[in-house]
Amino acid sequence: MTELDTLIQLLARLPGLGPRSARRAALYLLKRRDQAMLPLAAAMSAAAAAVRPCSVCGNLDTSDPCAICRDPERDRAAICVVEDVSDLWALERTGAFRGRYHVLGGTLSALDGIGPGELNIGPLMARLGPDIELILALSATVEGQTTAHYLADRAAATGARISRLAQGVPIGGELDYLDEGTLTAALKSRRAM
Amino acid sequence: MTELDTLIQLLARLPGLGPRSARRAALYLLKRRDQAMLPLAAAMSAAAAAVRPCSVCGNLDTSDPCAICRDPERDRAAICVVEDVSDLWALERTGAFRGRYHVLGGTLSALDGIGPGELNIGPLMARLGPDIELILALSATVEGQTTAHYLADRAAATGARISRLAQGVPIGGELDYLDEGTLTAALKSRRAM
Repeated sequence: MTELDTLIQLLARLPGLGPRSARRAALYLLKRRDQAMLPLAAAMSAAAAAVRPCSVCGNLDTSDPCAICRDPERDRAAICVVEDVSDLWALERTGAFRGRYHVLGGTLSALDGIGPGELNIGPLMARLGPDIELILALSATVEGQTTAHYLADRAAATGARISRLAQGVPIGGELDYLDEGTLTAALKSRRAM
Repeated sequence: MTELDTLIQLLARLPGLGPRSARRAALYLLKRRDQAMLPLAAAMSAAAAAVRPCSVCGNLDTSDPCAICRDPERDRAAICVVEDVSDLWALERTGAFRGRYHVLGGTLSALDGIGPGELNIGPLMARLGPDIELILALSATVEGQTTAHYLADRAAATGARISRLAQGVPIGGELDYLDEGTLTAALKSRRAM
């Protein structure tokens, strides 16, 4: 196998790229050796060396504790639990949350053999206490909600206040196109105006 | 900007990846440092060092002349002209062509300021002669066909036989969904059976 085949095969494993787009990406890189391929190779090596999980919250960053955990401006009394670093990034892009995070690393899933021991749950419990609000920002899927209930049960003993994200009509959502579950949730949680 | 931001930004420039999928790809790599990120970085460096354009045909390969040009089994009397290395790869995947190639590096395009001087045309003409069949495998677009006509005009002086890919109904194509241009071409080139 030539260097070219190896490159295409490794690119094809990236999420979002298949065999066809991996070939396109490889050609793009080969035609831009100095502007794209070598900088990307260097960025990967640099990130592999510098980025590590935060020992407090599980976020990925170049420092440990991560920039969010070290930021004195961020509220220590609110901990937002997310499944994955990508969810943390999504919440950070909103700019709407000024507390801290805790990355579980997945959800409970009997099918995939993921129990509480496989998730970053012990360290979360150690961070909780009566003066903490625990915000469960997990997916509105069966696994996400099972995990949320499990965490709420265990966190109750710590005295933390527990909340979860609101469920309802997404902004810009047309009622016509929403599933029954979302509409039912939106109706049940209707607010006076 | 941290190593993480640099990595995401460079990944987002790959064709087929946008900002969102670049973040997913970066996370995928960061979570698989030794199985995915370091091998991919190494594959890029290796390909950047080893892969170069073939001085005969313009194909990208780790040897010069490329494996196809060096292969004594491949017919020297048939030269298939393609726009890009990706087209050469597509034809090679069919296994239907046993001649050699010539990669133009694009098509003539007045809009983009690409004239004959910007394409790999001079070396193509030098490869032609009365004993050569020149197969024009260019896109069935305005630019592709303009380029094909230009090449056919210039190649006529060399005495080469000139052909182009058949146009018609694609295999598996339903007439209902085909555009008028394709149907017209298929009708004009109908074959006795």
